[in-house]
Amino acid sequence: MDTGRKIIIVVMDGLGDRAVKELGYRTPLQAATKPNLDWFARNGTSGCMDVIGPGIRPGSDTSHLAILGYDPFTVYTGRGPFEAAGVGLMGKNGDIAFRCNFATVDHKMDVLDRRAGRIKEPDTGELVKALDGLEVNGFEAVVKEATEHRAVLLLSGSGLDPRVTDADPHAVAKVQTSRPLVPEAKRTADAVNEFVRRSYEILDAHPVNVRRRMEGLLPANVLLPRGAGTFPDLEPFRKKHGLAGSCVAGVSLIKGICRVCGLDIVEAPGATGGLDTDMASKANTALRELERKDFVLMNVKAADIVSHDGNARRKIEVIERLDSMAGILKDGLPEGAAIAFCADHCTPVTRMDHSGDPVPLTIYSETSIKDGVKSYDEVSCASGALGRTRGKDLLPIMVDKVDRSKKFGA
Amino acid sequence: MDTGRKIIIVVMDGLGDRAVKELGYRTPLQAATKPNLDWFARNGTSGCMDVIGPGIRPGSDTSHLAILGYDPFTVYTGRGPFEAAGVGLMGKNGDIAFRCNFATVDHKMDVLDRRAGRIKEPDTGELVKALDGLEVNGFEAVVKEATEHRAVLLLSGSGLDPRVTDADPHAVAKVQTSRPLVPEAKRTADAVNEFVRRSYEILDAHPVNVRRRMEGLLPANVLLPRGAGTFPDLEPFRKKHGLAGSCVAGVSLIKGICRVCGLDIVEAPGATGGLDTDMASKANTALRELERKDFVLMNVKAADIVSHDGNARRKIEVIERLDSMAGILKDGLPEGAAIAFCADHCTPVTRMDHSGDPVPLTIYSETSIKDGVKSYDEVSCASGALGRTRGKDLLPIMVDKVDRSKKFGA
Repeated sequence: MDTGRKIIIVVMDGLGDRAVKELGYRTPLQAATKPNLDWFARNGTSGCMDVIGPGIRPGSDTSHLAILGYDPFTVYTGRGPFEAAGVGLMGKNGDIAFRCNFATVDHKMDVLDRRAGRIKEPDTGELVKALDGLEVNGFEAVVKEATEHRAVLLLSGSGLDPRVTDADPHAVAKVQTSRPLVPEAKRTADAVNEFVRRSYEILDAHPVNVRRRMEGLLPANVLLPRGAGTFPDLEPFRKKHGLAGSCVAGVSLIKGICRVCGLDIVEAPGATGGLDTDMASKANTALRELERKDFVLMNVKAADIVSHDGNARRKIEVIERLDSMAGILKDGLPEGAAIAFCADHCTPVTRMDHSGDPVPLTIYSETSIKDGVKSYDEVSCASGALGRTRGKDLLPIMVDKVDRSKKFGA
Repeated sequence: MDTGRKIIIVVMDGLGDRAVKELGYRTPLQAATKPNLDWFARNGTSGCMDVIGPGIRPGSDTSHLAILGYDPFTVYTGRGPFEAAGVGLMGKNGDIAFRCNFATVDHKMDVLDRRAGRIKEPDTGELVKALDGLEVNGFEAVVKEATEHRAVLLLSGSGLDPRVTDADPHAVAKVQTSRPLVPEAKRTADAVNEFVRRSYEILDAHPVNVRRRMEGLLPANVLLPRGAGTFPDLEPFRKKHGLAGSCVAGVSLIKGICRVCGLDIVEAPGATGGLDTDMASKANTALRELERKDFVLMNVKAADIVSHDGNARRKIEVIERLDSMAGILKDGLPEGAAIAFCADHCTPVTRMDHSGDPVPLTIYSETSIKDGVKSYDEVSCASGALGRTRGKDLLPIMVDKVDRSKKFGA
């Protein structure tokens, strides 16, 4: 194992913002008190970063692929495979993953409740066992429960094609027949329909549902796939960047992306992917992980959550908690390490959704050139010596900062 | 029709410049008084923009294609089709457009005057009628008069190829035989030569020329094509960017580019494309147009004209008139709109022609982050939070600023 200098990338989800009138046309980052993040800005080198490209509005999946050094325009095949990988279901290239809902249907396959009375563990785990390993039209179906009423379905076998429509009607309506969008996808669509039919056949009479009906609960008597996506054929992270890496994240989708890229997923006690997450635990877990790894990607979701609610004041509070987390990272940073603070995208509180604005970026290592930037925020960072960079360039830059880059030429 | 937030891009043609000795090594923008442009710089976010790429010296056609979000390296096929579209002659992909001069020749086809005694309307309009609709070697020729002694020729039909040389000798010399530059262009070159022959046959005895000779004027007895270009197959602007758009411009070439991209062309009363243009009228026309459209591109030519003359003092005067126009736009800007001020290229007064220097860019909307830039000029803008951007990224950035961008990923 390489024992070279270490790299951490801290992705503060949805952190970047725009000028907010109620904050005197400052951004939440400009309005917050954040001595630790500002320490990194003062002692590091800053810039702004188009995570995917100028004006391009990233999803959390495409943005993390870019930050991990992959080109999302080439490798992104949809969210399904990452959701599957997020609950530990890894396919190989060519396998197709679907996000699924447990739902309640009547005998005419009319959906009565898309969430089967908000069924959850342990019932979903029991029901999944009855479906996992089914063979449908020559493909193998692997099924795993996810959060609440959700599950993931993985079809594997030769000749699959993800260009099929959803069985989930996305409404209280009749279960849809999956249709091929191209002729080559006919076998896949047929398999989806057969899987839905078999799921009803098996689940409707399942002891869990017999019990639920007796208790006055809605039965989860069908599993409805949507969002087909092929598992992408990614160059493993270690091979691509020469780093053994881990991911510390609370959100399942982010874990899934990192797992598909070949990072190890480390659970931080108390990390939830929610506002109640234990940020200190995440920082400490990341630092511990760096004792045996070269690279850690941290994702903290909280700023994105309050931004989607449009709440500038709560965003400032979250930033101040993120700053305490940055303080732990500052105190525990391994000697010679390089650390980057960034976001996967902006989520302006005025937009209440992702935007394509560039995100603030600060990279710190002991040898960082000091560019006079004094604050970690959208405006100050943009005046820094890193200028305007791209997400997919971040990892090569970080690898070079810790003197692990290969020479191109002689 | 979408009634989302609006976008204006104001292209101040040839505005950017270099340090001018007689201005104490300031640029004309640095030397001018321009409170309104500076207001946008103070309240918006600024940067500098390589309209095509660093060091690449744009034409007005390639630069406007880039600003409209198209890649000129892929789509640009020559100026001819845009000149044709500028006078209202739209071809389809595969048609070939030529710029033409009415000229005076003797019976040996020696050019006596390349501008036929500076003939103009209404004579050119009369002569064009005699040529429009001719069939030459199986192709249809559509002819339309343009400004002064100019006209445009459109050949349509199957198997055309623009790789042919000009019939116009570009000098007082013999009319050139158009030659194919590749074997596939032979039929096209033959058609050009046949068209020139027929134009002489028809025009030499035309009553307009009989009259001109009697009045002691040179006859316009031939039409000489040059600058063959295929009509490009552009993705319509509305489909590409999701915006219904219009163009307010005085110059025919700019109108042509916008028309080919699928923008509507709106005439502003008093807009001439010259120094005498009514800039207030242009601003008011653009604002009125935004009441029913999503997007307006404005082009004002004046700064480019004085720059080609090398006159720094007059450039400052033009800038001060442009600033008044910016004041009208400031007062009338629709709520939630985003506006960009830029140039299509620099035209340094010391060079008296276009240069490849980046142009100053300011983008303003209410939620713009305030980056401390206080003046709209080449130096101040370059220190702004937008950093160094590219022309083709401007429209995606603007679309995102008004929250109309699509998410890439989930």
